[in-house]
Amino acid sequence: MTRTLVADLPSHLDETVTVYGWINTLRLQRRMQFVLVRDHTGLIQVTHARGGEGDEIEAAFERVTAESAVKITGKVVGNPQVKLGGLEIVPERVEVVSPAEPKLPIDEHTGLDQRLDWRFLDIRRPSQHLVFAVQTTVEQAMREVTAEEGFTELHTPKLMGTASESGAEVFKVDYFERTAYLAQSPQFYKQMAIAAGIDKVFEIGPVFRAEPSFTSRHATEFTGVDAELAWIDGVEDVMAFEERLLQRVLRRVSERHGDAVTEHFGARVVVPETPFPRLTMADALTKLRATGWDPEGAKDDLDPEGERRLCALVAEETGHEFVFVTRFPASVRPFYHLRPEDDPTVTESFDLLWKGVEITTGAQREHRHERLIAQAREKGMETEPLAGYLNCFRFGTPPHGGLGLGLGRLLMLLLGLPTIREVTFLFRGPHRLEP
Amino acid sequence: MTRTLVADLPSHLDETVTVYGWINTLRLQRRMQFVLVRDHTGLIQVTHARGGEGDEIEAAFERVTAESAVKITGKVVGNPQVKLGGLEIVPERVEVVSPAEPKLPIDEHTGLDQRLDWRFLDIRRPSQHLVFAVQTTVEQAMREVTAEEGFTELHTPKLMGTASESGAEVFKVDYFERTAYLAQSPQFYKQMAIAAGIDKVFEIGPVFRAEPSFTSRHATEFTGVDAELAWIDGVEDVMAFEERLLQRVLRRVSERHGDAVTEHFGARVVVPETPFPRLTMADALTKLRATGWDPEGAKDDLDPEGERRLCALVAEETGHEFVFVTRFPASVRPFYHLRPEDDPTVTESFDLLWKGVEITTGAQREHRHERLIAQAREKGMETEPLAGYLNCFRFGTPPHGGLGLGLGRLLMLLLGLPTIREVTFLFRGPHRLEP
Repeated sequence: MTRTLVADLPSHLDETVTVYGWINTLRLQRRMQFVLVRDHTGLIQVTHARGGEGDEIEAAFERVTAESAVKITGKVVGNPQVKLGGLEIVPERVEVVSPAEPKLPIDEHTGLDQRLDWRFLDIRRPSQHLVFAVQTTVEQAMREVTAEEGFTELHTPKLMGTASESGAEVFKVDYFERTAYLAQSPQFYKQMAIAAGIDKVFEIGPVFRAEPSFTSRHATEFTGVDAELAWIDGVEDVMAFEERLLQRVLRRVSERHGDAVTEHFGARVVVPETPFPRLTMADALTKLRATGWDPEGAKDDLDPEGERRLCALVAEETGHEFVFVTRFPASVRPFYHLRPEDDPTVTESFDLLWKGVEITTGAQREHRHERLIAQAREKGMETEPLAGYLNCFRFGTPPHGGLGLGLGRLLMLLLGLPTIREVTFLFRGPHRLEP
Repeated sequence: MTRTLVADLPSHLDETVTVYGWINTLRLQRRMQFVLVRDHTGLIQVTHARGGEGDEIEAAFERVTAESAVKITGKVVGNPQVKLGGLEIVPERVEVVSPAEPKLPIDEHTGLDQRLDWRFLDIRRPSQHLVFAVQTTVEQAMREVTAEEGFTELHTPKLMGTASESGAEVFKVDYFERTAYLAQSPQFYKQMAIAAGIDKVFEIGPVFRAEPSFTSRHATEFTGVDAELAWIDGVEDVMAFEERLLQRVLRRVSERHGDAVTEHFGARVVVPETPFPRLTMADALTKLRATGWDPEGAKDDLDPEGERRLCALVAEETGHEFVFVTRFPASVRPFYHLRPEDDPTVTESFDLLWKGVEITTGAQREHRHERLIAQAREKGMETEPLAGYLNCFRFGTPPHGGLGLGLGRLLMLLLGLPTIREVTFLFRGPHRLEP
């Protein structure tokens, strides 16, 4: 027995095939049985005229429950009355491979939290399948670019011996006789790769944040996309790389899934033009304050409301969905962000906003050992716990910079979904470690 | 200033270029200064005739230390006496971008453990660069196959609410007011994806083992390659997939790095023919006992010595580097491995051995809810902690199977290196959480 995918049925008209899938819907009428079968490529109607006593197919369709896994062998026939591509299968054999219990724990009215409890059933919806097909395409497109540009793909450790940056948001692990910490980002390690002479590094992997945040954009574990580039002339090189990356991503998603994304989510995939608009933080604040945001002028960083407003303003002026905000104040950036020679109060850093949400933080890093130490001290940090990090700058480390991008946020915005929980295979939050 | 890579210098003969790299060697003679500069693509000799007082280049080369990061501008000239491709650079400008401290903490005589302390310096060796270039190619080749075959790439959570399989080897994490566990493998989650109707799933990501093992093949954190295939006809489908995967991997590595691997490691990359040899565990034990291994016939699983001997025997008989060992006894396999109808004492499982070392464990999984429960009970397991897992088999889950492959072991064997510590970017073991 060979499997035929539902999407391939049009090329098997009048042939006998076997489809493998799930019972999507049963409509059992007095004379006819209409059964929709779903596989990962689509839906097909199986149409059976009841044969009465001794009709095994009729009996099988009476017994089978929705969401059971089945193999159905039959002839593909054209029927202009059928909505699903004008095709149906007239069954010759029905095998219930794995029956579903009659009562399903979720249905189309179930709220998000309970759907997440039964995520494997939730994902059976074609729209959720599309999420992960798009995710696969997004990563393929990213790797097209990194392969073309000579990146080395690395796997940096998630277990660390010291808590990076700030201890507060780091998960602690019992590690034999001591404590380990889960990496909040590959930041330290990808810079170490640059110090090791690897020219450009790339990683897609889990990052962990012990923050008790419950917003639509936060998770305690999420997939980070990280890149770091050596020998840059400035942070502009990092931003230009991200433009190439995202343009390719959106082009591939548009080509492969554009219509499906619109059909399932009502979202339009726009391939962005490069360069993306750029604004310094100072200009962004001026622009925002002119709209009434932060009337006291007390904020020196963007809040979610500021991000939304700024994107709306830029979209209005330029028609572009993206905007780089650059030159963040040193006060709101980590000690290792490089500061321009002409203004040590700011950093050679950026955030990338898309449709009102920050999806990336990036920067040129300070690669000069003595300046790093000075900047750490200025932030009131002890340098001893940083020794492992600082050592990387003692033996010849070129200028470099990089970025970190949240894959879940990217997918959420791409598909127009309200929360990263809908685009994460199995979401993890302060109250959710299951399933 | 534009960078020219060392590998591209032959096409810039008689032009003035700038190379960015590290001082590899300084040979400062009375009349001449010979400086080898290394970037990630190769080595080039920079040859300077001392100009005496006021010669800035001479002075720079006197001051600069080995491993400093430099930019050198000069003319590319042909010189048949130079070993490195018959080319050298006559410098016009030398910029020390980032100086190295004069005393390096490791050199070519340093032992492995101290080299790992200074891994970023250790990796500057071209042979270590090759390791990660090969790793990148290995993963690209794997993703070529999974893309062609319609796999969905997933990111399964590393934080779990319950300890999978056996609690003993699982790291515990302080998770707000409760305990989380680090995933030992994506096993549970990739099966959940199959239950979700995703047809084939693939993941490359970290796995965590709290084992106090100190062998050359073990780590507490390593990169796992995991795949799971739905609607298989049997475990043979999983093995055939792995053959296609590894054949592609070794073909691409051979094409792109075959000569370099031989040059740096003395290893020959052999593209394997398919099918790989297969032996049932029973036949493997018979064969091994004939050689004097396990004379009492007490063992029902292979030990490292058995794996080495078996591979040697198979290589002698067939000339093949790989062998699948199949039908492991149920006693040495987890409860969720499917058992064949004709013999419930064994499982539809396999290990793949390569050059004497196990690199993969795979199996068809039991997808029938009641049999899973029976097999768990037979192993003396409580079914309540397994509820989250067992739920996946209550609502229609097709036959499926998959495999897990250790990326580090694959690379170690491919390059003929003695330990996975040499092929891991930053090794993690019971005594090593740094750098």
